[in-house]
Amino acid sequence: MPSYTAPIKDMQFILHDVLNLTEAGIPGYADLERDFTGAILEEAGKISSEVLAPLNPVGDTEGCRLENGVVYTPTGFKAAFEQVKEGGWPGLDMPEEYGGQNMPYVIGTAVGEMFSSANQAFTMYQGLTHGAASAILAHGSDDQKNTYLPKMVACDWTGTMNLTEPHCGTDLGLMRTKAEPQADGSYRITGQKIFISSGEHDMADNIIHLVLAKITGGPEGIKGVSLFIVPKFVVNEDGSLGQRNALSCGKIEEKMGIHGNSTCVMNYDGATGYLLGEEHKGMRAMFTMMNEARLGVGMQGLAQAEIAYQNALAYAKDRLQGRDVTGVKNPDGPADPLIVHPDIRRSLMDQKSFAEGARAFILWGATLIDRAHRGQDTAADGLVSLLTPVIKGFLTDQGYDMTIKAQQVYGGHGYIEEWGMSQYTRDARIAMIYEGANGVQALDLVGRKLAQDGGKHVMAFFDLVKTFIKDNQGQDDAFDRDFLEPLKKASKDLQSAGMYFMQNGMKNPNNALAGSYDFMHMFGHVCLGLMWAKMGRAAMQALKDGASDAAFYETKIATGRYYMARQLPATALHLSRIESGADTVMALEAANF
Amino acid sequence: MPSYTAPIKDMQFILHDVLNLTEAGIPGYADLERDFTGAILEEAGKISSEVLAPLNPVGDTEGCRLENGVVYTPTGFKAAFEQVKEGGWPGLDMPEEYGGQNMPYVIGTAVGEMFSSANQAFTMYQGLTHGAASAILAHGSDDQKNTYLPKMVACDWTGTMNLTEPHCGTDLGLMRTKAEPQADGSYRITGQKIFISSGEHDMADNIIHLVLAKITGGPEGIKGVSLFIVPKFVVNEDGSLGQRNALSCGKIEEKMGIHGNSTCVMNYDGATGYLLGEEHKGMRAMFTMMNEARLGVGMQGLAQAEIAYQNALAYAKDRLQGRDVTGVKNPDGPADPLIVHPDIRRSLMDQKSFAEGARAFILWGATLIDRAHRGQDTAADGLVSLLTPVIKGFLTDQGYDMTIKAQQVYGGHGYIEEWGMSQYTRDARIAMIYEGANGVQALDLVGRKLAQDGGKHVMAFFDLVKTFIKDNQGQDDAFDRDFLEPLKKASKDLQSAGMYFMQNGMKNPNNALAGSYDFMHMFGHVCLGLMWAKMGRAAMQALKDGASDAAFYETKIATGRYYMARQLPATALHLSRIESGADTVMALEAANF
Repeated sequence: MPSYTAPIKDMQFILHDVLNLTEAGIPGYADLERDFTGAILEEAGKISSEVLAPLNPVGDTEGCRLENGVVYTPTGFKAAFEQVKEGGWPGLDMPEEYGGQNMPYVIGTAVGEMFSSANQAFTMYQGLTHGAASAILAHGSDDQKNTYLPKMVACDWTGTMNLTEPHCGTDLGLMRTKAEPQADGSYRITGQKIFISSGEHDMADNIIHLVLAKITGGPEGIKGVSLFIVPKFVVNEDGSLGQRNALSCGKIEEKMGIHGNSTCVMNYDGATGYLLGEEHKGMRAMFTMMNEARLGVGMQGLAQAEIAYQNALAYAKDRLQGRDVTGVKNPDGPADPLIVHPDIRRSLMDQKSFAEGARAFILWGATLIDRAHRGQDTAADGLVSLLTPVIKGFLTDQGYDMTIKAQQVYGGHGYIEEWGMSQYTRDARIAMIYEGANGVQALDLVGRKLAQDGGKHVMAFFDLVKTFIKDNQGQDDAFDRDFLEPLKKASKDLQSAGMYFMQNGMKNPNNALAGSYDFMHMFGHVCLGLMWAKMGRAAMQALKDGASDAAFYETKIATGRYYMARQLPATALHLSRIESGADTVMALEAANF
Repeated sequence: MPSYTAPIKDMQFILHDVLNLTEAGIPGYADLERDFTGAILEEAGKISSEVLAPLNPVGDTEGCRLENGVVYTPTGFKAAFEQVKEGGWPGLDMPEEYGGQNMPYVIGTAVGEMFSSANQAFTMYQGLTHGAASAILAHGSDDQKNTYLPKMVACDWTGTMNLTEPHCGTDLGLMRTKAEPQADGSYRITGQKIFISSGEHDMADNIIHLVLAKITGGPEGIKGVSLFIVPKFVVNEDGSLGQRNALSCGKIEEKMGIHGNSTCVMNYDGATGYLLGEEHKGMRAMFTMMNEARLGVGMQGLAQAEIAYQNALAYAKDRLQGRDVTGVKNPDGPADPLIVHPDIRRSLMDQKSFAEGARAFILWGATLIDRAHRGQDTAADGLVSLLTPVIKGFLTDQGYDMTIKAQQVYGGHGYIEEWGMSQYTRDARIAMIYEGANGVQALDLVGRKLAQDGGKHVMAFFDLVKTFIKDNQGQDDAFDRDFLEPLKKASKDLQSAGMYFMQNGMKNPNNALAGSYDFMHMFGHVCLGLMWAKMGRAAMQALKDGASDAAFYETKIATGRYYMARQLPATALHLSRIESGADTVMALEAANF
């Protein structure tokens, strides 16, 4: 049976030694003392390991079941959902006036990683609710906020996002779902939406669907899309539940993974809906939540990599197979544990250095969001907007690869469902697809974000790297050689790629777009390189300060050195691909493929 | 519904324009005229597309079922198996005296790719039988050959390979299954074997298990392992089936994929077995089939990549989403097809250039096996022995990655089982694990094969690359620049890596082993680079000769240029990892992970 231990020590190191939360000057951060965050993380870790993780294989094996319009979640989900609600976890970073605890997003993100590691499919019910509530919070009228938020913050009612239709996913301008204005100010929503996560289930009294649709007579294409609140049960003026709305789950999909989450085809047959935000500004309303939602998906990539790594590590220490070629390590046993073998080490170090680097990256991203939202810091807002497609695309691709590496450590046992490793890969796979497929993230990065505000955000990023290097070099030769030099080299590669796009994308935008995926990955490596340099620096400082747990900080430095030596040099390959241009990519006529 | 079209034209190009079969001077090759191989491939393509491919999702959905010791294969498998047998496919490359058609292995391999693309789980029943029959052919007594081969060549009886036990896979020296000598010369086999593909099923009258076991009182460890024939039904002297042997299927495993193949736990409870080959030489007997078996698994990597690519391509041409940024391509439609987008192109070109390069690599490998076996060419034998771990490890890793890329083209639909793309990835995943996990392939390559016979085979490989470059350069500037230069560079990287191992592996073998996986991948890239250079050359020649289908050959050259520009440069990254040595890989104490 796979198990999960929350990486609390590592989170605390990042929050306090690397990001220095309490000194960050962000409203609400001053309260985040080490003991305080420690207590929250301990509690979250406990419910993750003890309640959510044991249900993970149950959800995978049982899946959801649609019977007469009712979707039944797997055994135990309902009770666990109640426990999560009782713990107040869904409202952790929601405003107090709606029943939340008003904690910074960075704390919600750390807790979210644990929940997702332990049970991604389960956590999605809560995650989608959080997303929908955030949209209402940002765009709803006071009346809408008062009607829906208290229930949604508590997860008494859950939420969904309805974007995709059978013929359109990325290209939402093709949308056909219609909204007809009614005399009372409401709309009648008609159409079919697919891939609706948590679309119908048995864990909440009401489900609040946020639905993109076109108001009849409005502009063509994407400019005519508006966002609507469409509750499963219409809410009466007194807050009680009224009539069942004209919407239903037509089918639940058979998927590769996240079986515990109900992925629904939702049919809206003249359902009553309420405009959320402005007419025809539905996409803008969706986009305001995009950074958070995409960071959340990037976090899922890390979360699955983390639990897969934990179990691969345990297996590598336990399973006896072959002997260390440099000398027997387990003379009393019939063989040495797998972990003595260099190629198993390589795999484990890849996983470990990714997970810890990714965690720092995500938590840093979360502080940027806090800085933007709580501190009204537009520079932070611009920077996180630039980094969002990198967090989403790079971390889910790499996170998935790491689950595959973890599965591989198990040999044949990794392929057998009973051992649990297959589920991590199958669950992780969706994160590369939903919330904008990773190719679309690369397009967003290179086609929009790079040039946004005159390229100011990417300049700010490079400045940040440069300043870090300048401030920290010349103090320790090994650190300069093992951390700063590789970071400088990788950052230079990234700049060269940006330069190539500028010089060649003008005459042919395909020269930029054909390199977009490589650019996203090289950007990700530079970010993780920066994180590792920061973590290495913080670990050195802790050792200098005489930290009691020297092994922890030494391990941190050794893991960082691995990343710098073995992973970061990938930037050169990505650069060479980018600089080969679009010619070879676009050479063939479609008919000649 | 996914579909499959056999890549006959591409196979013919490789067999005749690149490998020049009929002029290869290998016994049996003179018969392989273009028309003749074309006819075989057409027939094999037909049964693949029409009979095997439609059963692929059926096998995935239904899986196998164990009831009262009987394993039921999925609906339709039995009838299809009869059709395959009637077509004489299982004995294609088996000796005529046992009912085979005695064709070269290269033809069996081309057909094998089609069958595996169409239905990997189904084809394994036949593939395992082929492997077991080959072992009996190589090591059996005349009596054993006469008893088992006619039935196995026809697939009236199928075969299995029993190596793994619950506590040992790679390290077979730990094996516990026992063989007690009996007065009549037979042995009583007792023990449990796991992961036995096709271990029990309802498609054959008898199942011939080849079982590794230790003869009681023999040497310890791997040196005491012998190979036994253990039939499900003991065969009487007159060839009729006698009593049921004391063996049974205890369980079939729930796996991530290849659901249509029964993966069995096999219990041997004093079953009657017959020594195959010499006492205590079981591993050697297994190893003689290893090259073929591993090439076959490498081929599965290609096969799944090919069918996944075909379907991704069809979807990319069909699905309308977004517009070409360089100008609308489908003005009458609501959007342009996916294939206009550079990042989709990148993905498709990755897949296409891999599949065609891998096909050439495997078919070339098969000619080396033919050269070794039919022509008693020891140099070819040494070379294919060197290349075998590369074929197995590199092609299954890359093949798997390509199925993931193909699935990604489908967006959300790729994650829904109904569309079939998930199955390709789940089925392809096993090929990285079985027949020696890919880490073990890398170990075999760097730890054994590189230095074999004084390093003569790797020298021969480099000579081959060098000679090709020398013989072909200076005739066409574009070819020199786009094909030969990148190949020279990549080959030099590979040589540098080998040099690094020689210089640093002596003082610490971990310096070689920590780079083994990267070495296997860079070797694979150089092989595919060589294949693409050869294919590019052959395509240029065909165009010069005024070939009628110019577009086919021009496409071949363009695809090769893509591989050389975008994939081959990966060798530099692998080299930099290798040259970073073992220090960062081995730095941590196991306890500090």
